Amino acid sequence: MNRRAFAAAATGGITALGLRPGTRPWRLQQPPRVHTDRLLEMFAGLRQFGATTDGGVERLAYSDADLAGRAFVTERMRRAGLDVRVDTAGNLFGRRAGRRNDLPPILMGSHIDSVPDGGAYDGTVGSLGALEAAWTMSDARLVTDHPIDVVVFQNEEGGLFGSEALAGRLGADDLARTALSGFTLRDGITRIGGDPDRLAAARRAPGSLHAYLELHIEQGGILEAAGEDIGVVEGIVGIEQWDVTVTGVANHAGTTPMPQRRDALVAAARFVEAVNRIALTTRGRQVATVGQISAHPGAPNVVPGEVRMSLEIRDLDAAKIQSVFAAIRSEAEAIASASGTTVAFRDRELNIVPAPTNPDIRAAITAAARDLGLKNRLMPSGAGHDAQSLAPLCPIGMIFVPSVGGISHSPREFTKPEDVVNGANVLLRTALAVDRLALGR
Amino acid sequence: MNRRAFAAAATGGITALGLRPGTRPWRLQQPPRVHTDRLLEMFAGLRQFGATTDGGVERLAYSDADLAGRAFVTERMRRAGLDVRVDTAGNLFGRRAGRRNDLPPILMGSHIDSVPDGGAYDGTVGSLGALEAAWTMSDARLVTDHPIDVVVFQNEEGGLFGSEALAGRLGADDLARTALSGFTLRDGITRIGGDPDRLAAARRAPGSLHAYLELHIEQGGILEAAGEDIGVVEGIVGIEQWDVTVTGVANHAGTTPMPQRRDALVAAARFVEAVNRIALTTRGRQVATVGQISAHPGAPNVVPGEVRMSLEIRDLDAAKIQSVFAAIRSEAEAIASASGTTVAFRDRELNIVPAPTNPDIRAAITAAARDLGLKNRLMPSGAGHDAQSLAPLCPIGMIFVPSVGGISHSPREFTKPEDVVNGANVLLRTALAVDRLALGR
Repeated sequence: MNRRAFAAAATGGITALGLRPGTRPWRLQQPPRVHTDRLLEMFAGLRQFGATTDGGVERLAYSDADLAGRAFVTERMRRAGLDVRVDTAGNLFGRRAGRRNDLPPILMGSHIDSVPDGGAYDGTVGSLGALEAAWTMSDARLVTDHPIDVVVFQNEEGGLFGSEALAGRLGADDLARTALSGFTLRDGITRIGGDPDRLAAARRAPGSLHAYLELHIEQGGILEAAGEDIGVVEGIVGIEQWDVTVTGVANHAGTTPMPQRRDALVAAARFVEAVNRIALTTRGRQVATVGQISAHPGAPNVVPGEVRMSLEIRDLDAAKIQSVFAAIRSEAEAIASASGTTVAFRDRELNIVPAPTNPDIRAAITAAARDLGLKNRLMPSGAGHDAQSLAPLCPIGMIFVPSVGGISHSPREFTKPEDVVNGANVLLRTALAVDRLALGR
Repeated sequence: MNRRAFAAAATGGITALGLRPGTRPWRLQQPPRVHTDRLLEMFAGLRQFGATTDGGVERLAYSDADLAGRAFVTERMRRAGLDVRVDTAGNLFGRRAGRRNDLPPILMGSHIDSVPDGGAYDGTVGSLGALEAAWTMSDARLVTDHPIDVVVFQNEEGGLFGSEALAGRLGADDLARTALSGFTLRDGITRIGGDPDRLAAARRAPGSLHAYLELHIEQGGILEAAGEDIGVVEGIVGIEQWDVTVTGVANHAGTTPMPQRRDALVAAARFVEAVNRIALTTRGRQVATVGQISAHPGAPNVVPGEVRMSLEIRDLDAAKIQSVFAAIRSEAEAIASASGTTVAFRDRELNIVPAPTNPDIRAAITAAARDLGLKNRLMPSGAGHDAQSLAPLCPIGMIFVPSVGGISHSPREFTKPEDVVNGANVLLRTALAVDRLALGR
């Protein structure tokens, strides 16, 4: 769509909704729509940095590709009239002044770093969607009450490092850690213009932000399967992980008759099946996964004496995670008892607590989607996002757009251009609505 | 027991069985019993070579400990009046002439090499039992019709290499293989006095041996659990192995709802359970084992997309192995179909065929055990032994003595001294009986 067509479509949208063109002030008329061509051109431009031959992107935090991508975004922020700065943790901000710059800003954005052998959409859609939303406001000469900060958080894929710095949870101890690009966090943060010796300056106090809004690809297949356009995120799930060890008796596989075996892998197999069944049949949307398994001594001719597994449980409700774990643990003990084995759980102390989104922001997202004629649903975010780092500081809101086939962290990651544009339009309207809201914390 | 006590016990045994001392020729009276003190002293001597601090033995084929152990046995063979030689494959033989040296010899023995971190009994009991049996014959001036060769096969634990050479299945291609001691087979065979360039000279023609007799620890817990003294081995099981791959779809463990998963590990868990159930409930004594498992990509937060496993099935009957495999494969395909995954089997082409023992030798072992007042049972050997290499060449027989707790390939491997002596006595009587038998092939 070119500019002229875009303008016609925007007018058409307003007319279709029965609003009279020309009505003032802006908040009583339909907000403008983002510039489709500009957004998609930015998207096509950014994916060049770290592009892989199979259509994917590998833009590891602090790598040359990451630096080049950040330079590209910085240049576009400046073109959009945003006031660019990098905080001491290396997060990139582009500010659009508000009517009242004493008010806490609305933060909106995501990240542009990728996993190894990743895709072009994860993080990028939300970063560029936020930039385009702010740019569109400027084009339309819309002035919000709150200042708006478009943000590109650094090193999300490594562990939300940039956003955690705002919450004061990135410390000097972390600086020696090595990122996927091979740089230490200290060297990496220096490379992207931060100041690792002054991380505390990146910290934000609770209440110092009006809200944080993040647009992101779903990374799951729920929206696509349901033929829906927009996910209104209820919250980001909490995650707990355990090491599970089943101990039986290792024995010669030739000389130990079947009835005399205390096979740790047979017991572990029953455990894996139980985890799946409990998560599937318990009321709710919890997920439970065994993703790692090893049998010891691990020879084809030895009955396994020990099996080690991972167990992960996610849910929006921390108490639900614990009750599902209790059910799994209880069944595991029954399996062990019946099979002459023992089972032990060690909490990996991940302690990722659920981060609920703000109900008023959810309502604003739902209204924006509805006004744009987009099918939407309330849904949890099963994946982690920078928004969860911000949850202790301010009300948060998240918008999902469909991932084709539910695929992410892969070169095959794909979100249709119209869904990228839909997401940016919903984000724009949500930001304008949130600007007018006195959000409870 | 000292010599004087032994002699008294032997006499007592004869009296108890109602036979008149002094009867001639020997085969009409009770055979002598092995010299308990001498056998146990040899056993205590040999276990010094490669002794580990926890009471185990690590005497890897071709290692210095193996060479020292072989030198010890060689010296005792000479003391016993045996004519010692090493064949080109490195197997150690001690010959006792027969009345008719044109007859094919009776071979009896085992091996003295161990697994890493192994025990003192596996192989050693049979090697020294055979040596003591031959020595006892000499002490008693018993002359057999057939010559007797006491044999210590080289590198049994690495893959029956020494005994396979007699069957013509150790070739020049194998010489580059590396043994557990780090030596290549070429260097190892040279170290122990063989001639790797003339392996073919170690080959024996079918029919060139009267019989092969092997005493061995059970390496399982059947005899001990039943309170029995002697296992009369029906045959050595055949072994087949497969690589099993279950393919599902790898997915983000947070964003993929339980009902949408095609979790390869959940399907694999059902497979492991099915293998165990089929082997346990099918009529017979087959065993089936999954000893290796890995999930891919293998992260706690990723639903496994692929699981690789080993499958091993053993039975005395090759057709039974195939029918059990067919049942497992059929159920695997049903599991895959029900779970949206696929399953593939690749035959590892182990092709270890069952090696039945000779019925007349089994009867001789049973009679020997009965005459000695030892409780015995017919049983399969679930483990592999040098005897199976010899099965294509001559009638074979195997005698088992109990392994405490069924433990082997471990420093905790243990067989009671009285069981070691019982085994040697049964071997001695069996050899004398087999000497008189025209064994069908």
